[in-house]
Amino acid sequence: MKISFIGLGIMGLPMAKHLFEAGYLSKVYNRTKSKTKIFEEKGVQISDSPKEAAQGADIIFIIVSDSADVKEVVLGSEGVLEGARPGSIVVDMSSINPEVSKKIGQELAKLDVEMIDAPVSGGEQGAINAELAIMVGGAPSAVAQVRPYLEVMGKSITHLGPLGSGGYAKLANQVIVGIELQAVAEAFHLANHAGLDFEKLYEAIRYGLAGSKVLDQKIDNLISGSFEPGFAIDLHLKDMKNAILAAKEQNLHLPFTQELKALLQKMSESGYGDLDHSGMYKFIRENA
Amino acid sequence: MKISFIGLGIMGLPMAKHLFEAGYLSKVYNRTKSKTKIFEEKGVQISDSPKEAAQGADIIFIIVSDSADVKEVVLGSEGVLEGARPGSIVVDMSSINPEVSKKIGQELAKLDVEMIDAPVSGGEQGAINAELAIMVGGAPSAVAQVRPYLEVMGKSITHLGPLGSGGYAKLANQVIVGIELQAVAEAFHLANHAGLDFEKLYEAIRYGLAGSKVLDQKIDNLISGSFEPGFAIDLHLKDMKNAILAAKEQNLHLPFTQELKALLQKMSESGYGDLDHSGMYKFIRENA
Repeated sequence: MKISFIGLGIMGLPMAKHLFEAGYLSKVYNRTKSKTKIFEEKGVQISDSPKEAAQGADIIFIIVSDSADVKEVVLGSEGVLEGARPGSIVVDMSSINPEVSKKIGQELAKLDVEMIDAPVSGGEQGAINAELAIMVGGAPSAVAQVRPYLEVMGKSITHLGPLGSGGYAKLANQVIVGIELQAVAEAFHLANHAGLDFEKLYEAIRYGLAGSKVLDQKIDNLISGSFEPGFAIDLHLKDMKNAILAAKEQNLHLPFTQELKALLQKMSESGYGDLDHSGMYKFIRENA
Repeated sequence: MKISFIGLGIMGLPMAKHLFEAGYLSKVYNRTKSKTKIFEEKGVQISDSPKEAAQGADIIFIIVSDSADVKEVVLGSEGVLEGARPGSIVVDMSSINPEVSKKIGQELAKLDVEMIDAPVSGGEQGAINAELAIMVGGAPSAVAQVRPYLEVMGKSITHLGPLGSGGYAKLANQVIVGIELQAVAEAFHLANHAGLDFEKLYEAIRYGLAGSKVLDQKIDNLISGSFEPGFAIDLHLKDMKNAILAAKEQNLHLPFTQELKALLQKMSESGYGDLDHSGMYKFIRENA
């Protein structure tokens, strides 16, 4: 089985390393070539284009930033589409608009290349520890073929349906997390003005219906007032833009998601974009 | 120690029973007298007014619906204020605007009567099982005196600060829960239109940052489409009204809380008020 990996960013680099360590990695491509060095030293073939990475590969993993980047990598000049052989499988692990995934999948299908979307949750630490939650959409036979390789990178692999289903699950995840963070921000803002101690408040509510992973993982940031990422506000903004784009294509109105997108946009424009997304609390504290 | 209990509603009745079973209950008062019958049979004194319930009592527990009801019970004609003796303690366990609690406390303080606010979380089932989370605000010495009796009704008793602090903790709790429910509603609405299976989606996201008690406790409602309360939308609306009233008194703008209040109002006016608050999903599915 020949496996290629495209995109060696914060997430992609540790993920590709896991594939390499398991003995699965044949070729890598990254736009910034310096990042490929550690693989070159290990004898992995370095490609000059996505096309070259796709040539001769059975499975082509991709993890880049957003819809436009995936489009460029797959459909652009010197893209995957130009190199992939019939019967191969493209696995896009980027977090993008799932409607774009479907359209790219249609182009690949014309050449008998399968496409799977498999965005991840768990952040850089999850990628480093091979503990990602991977949300998978695609044809069952193709998903079965790639599952052993996904298991090298993640700890839970959930097949949700056809191509695009992985992306929708990821968007649902991000909608919940983002709106929850704003809920916590407003609740703690109110409590702060009422003079409440955040540790006591956390103790009072954590075991009840207000208890959540968001609260458990972000309470230290709220207490310390320090919002190092983590997962940046600008990245969450990207996800909310994709959620709204996807919702619009289905004629759905998601009022709080829409509002969150606008709010994150404002935060980004006000210089909060590099903060951890729990920095929504800092924004309301300093601006409301 | 003479203990009186005012308000034998869905929450108050099982709470008063726990006090009775522990041997602590002297007198009860309820506006609708038929509800006092089970205590009359057990030899508990039935009062004809809050004033009468307060007379001779060391601690007077109150749990009624909203700010106006507490005001009426304490400050109204034949109210607690007319009967309470100096040195006694009023413990209001209703969920109301904490700024109103402070004002009532000031009136009682003139007669040397202490006031504590101690709203609860955990619902009817929590009250029946004596597993309520009780959020307490008041003077430390008064809180120390009532703690043994609160422990008969709840499993976690958190003292958060002076009078009003309990109410603010409860509001913070309800802001988080309410906005989270809308987050889940929008995420699942989007996922539903994308054809995702709710059980698979839940499996894919429950262990990540989107995991929460709200998701764990309400997923069955989302899957079945059945929204029996539980905790009704109209009650959550009441809490959001109090959150906005309290925020306004502190000149705070809480945009999602404000939005949620308006949305719950719309749900209530459209006939969804009696549904469990997870019925926010039903509303968006049927109206967006």
